[in-house]
Amino acid sequence: MPELRYDILSGTCTIIASDRAKRPNDFKAAQKYEGPVPEIDPNCSFCVGNENETPPEVYALRDAGEANQPGWRVRVVPNKFPALRSAETAEIDSGMIDTEAAPEADDTSMYWRMPGIGAHEVVVESVKHNGTLGTYTVEEMAVILETLKQRYRVLSDDKYISYVQIFRNWGPEGGASLLHPHFQIIGLPLMPPEVSREVSHFREYESKTGRCLMCDYIERETEKDERVALKNDEFIVLCPFASRFSFETLIVPRKHCVTFSELDNEKATQLAEVFTSLFRAYENMFSSLSYNIVFHTLPPPKRSRKHPTDHWHIHVYPRLNVEAGLEKGAAVWINPVPPELAALQFGGKG
Amino acid sequence: MPELRYDILSGTCTIIASDRAKRPNDFKAAQKYEGPVPEIDPNCSFCVGNENETPPEVYALRDAGEANQPGWRVRVVPNKFPALRSAETAEIDSGMIDTEAAPEADDTSMYWRMPGIGAHEVVVESVKHNGTLGTYTVEEMAVILETLKQRYRVLSDDKYISYVQIFRNWGPEGGASLLHPHFQIIGLPLMPPEVSREVSHFREYESKTGRCLMCDYIERETEKDERVALKNDEFIVLCPFASRFSFETLIVPRKHCVTFSELDNEKATQLAEVFTSLFRAYENMFSSLSYNIVFHTLPPPKRSRKHPTDHWHIHVYPRLNVEAGLEKGAAVWINPVPPELAALQFGGKG
Repeated sequence: MPELRYDILSGTCTIIASDRAKRPNDFKAAQKYEGPVPEIDPNCSFCVGNENETPPEVYALRDAGEANQPGWRVRVVPNKFPALRSAETAEIDSGMIDTEAAPEADDTSMYWRMPGIGAHEVVVESVKHNGTLGTYTVEEMAVILETLKQRYRVLSDDKYISYVQIFRNWGPEGGASLLHPHFQIIGLPLMPPEVSREVSHFREYESKTGRCLMCDYIERETEKDERVALKNDEFIVLCPFASRFSFETLIVPRKHCVTFSELDNEKATQLAEVFTSLFRAYENMFSSLSYNIVFHTLPPPKRSRKHPTDHWHIHVYPRLNVEAGLEKGAAVWINPVPPELAALQFGGKG
Repeated sequence: MPELRYDILSGTCTIIASDRAKRPNDFKAAQKYEGPVPEIDPNCSFCVGNENETPPEVYALRDAGEANQPGWRVRVVPNKFPALRSAETAEIDSGMIDTEAAPEADDTSMYWRMPGIGAHEVVVESVKHNGTLGTYTVEEMAVILETLKQRYRVLSDDKYISYVQIFRNWGPEGGASLLHPHFQIIGLPLMPPEVSREVSHFREYESKTGRCLMCDYIERETEKDERVALKNDEFIVLCPFASRFSFETLIVPRKHCVTFSELDNEKATQLAEVFTSLFRAYENMFSSLSYNIVFHTLPPPKRSRKHPTDHWHIHVYPRLNVEAGLEKGAAVWINPVPPELAALQFGGKG
């Protein structure tokens, strides 16, 4: 059973995944895929025809076929090797779980831990084993985004889940262990300290100025127009002022919008436009780029305290630089690419 | 000129190293060294005989020879491509620099930045191009530690430097770009937000309990004896309770000790014993392990406010796991090796 532990020195949390315990020689170097990637790989568990190799699907958008059969466009399955498990499968006595008991920054308990309950799902985003975000049509991309929203809503409603992290790992430096394109969604039983910190920056800014930090930030960036990579009516893509990663981008709804759950059809189409344009640019700039996409959105407000000052957004972190001693020791990053130059490469004015 | 920028969303700092600006195709995949490493490499700038390929040395321990000539055992040189530069070489008007003006967590300024002044030094730790921490004698290791202490003291006294980060990157996943064994020291013109946070945990613990967090932590860990990797009279090596990295270790002075500057000869020898034993164990466990070593020690108290509750220590972060979407998005780590099992591998009781 995985376990969540809190580190009193750094204030961070770790999932100790004991049931996947490894000994020193179980660690192997990341395998790089050589040569062109086929459209279908008969050995891939996520490819059409191999639906029985995954746990049963929890959601799918289908043109034909029954559950766990071919005929799907997007398919969501629990992770076969989950970092966190649902309270049911973990056979945990729910009375033992107190999701309000997350550690506080001023906690003096040295050994805070809790059972690793939550959820870990895989969104198989395409039938194409060689699909990439830069090659999807806007319609295909919009379907993926709608699927992410559905699952984010369902997991946000789970009484044991306090925060839902949507992400996509790509390439060996991005930590992708499977080639078939997919997003992942992890439902955490606590609000992570780092997310609370970002939220508290929004709250403090609002209490001092009466305004939304993100609204003000994108307004100023739009005026300056030095770090805007691209935009349409609903979304803007920025190269952040203090980018930690070279060619890092930030995707933000241009109108104030608290959570990802507010994405309607029109906005999904516009976000899909931005995604496909942005990743077409990345794929043109780099022949093979490792990256992580992470969504920052709190659960919809109805569930928890109201948080009208939050403004959801998406970070894209290319993994071109290795984070080393200064990053790990002092949490200060070194980035050799000024965001103003990066914006130029995306077609912005720089 | 490099520039320090603060990100108001995440509360982290980045050094934008504009003068090393890269375009997309300047990024190359990390080169892995194939085959055995020679004891001397005529093409290595850090090897004996190539002293003129580095900037002039700022410190050396020599058995013979003049400065910047062969005859040294350990040699310290400014980094040829520094992330931060001294105020003199940067030709900055010192009136422009206010090292007290570091951004606060509640700052509402969106574009906080300052010139990238400070220091970036390389400690060439051995004449052996193929030297490793696990193969040095205790005496050799003690000399390296004494050298680090000397430079840490000198840089801590620089009026433009607020925090000194000592680190060692090893292997491609650890971000080492040069093979010749070396430590690095970066003097930062501000106290990094993450370091302040760790320090504030110590302060809060002290204000609530009247005791030192680290003293209490190692006392309890010594009693439990489940996560002790090794120890001698002066130092203990733990596998931390909430280890973020598989086989992570924490080296701590057993007696309360505020900063690294208090390391006397006897303690240097004992720390050298612990270092060589620990890395002999790592090198036996893994044929090639990438890692980062980071020192956490504030500048000596005489310079800044008193901070008697701090207790310096060293983190070793093996880079066996790739940090991916959950780590980047939520700052929650997944570690498949419980520290109790890791301690067993080091010879502890687990």
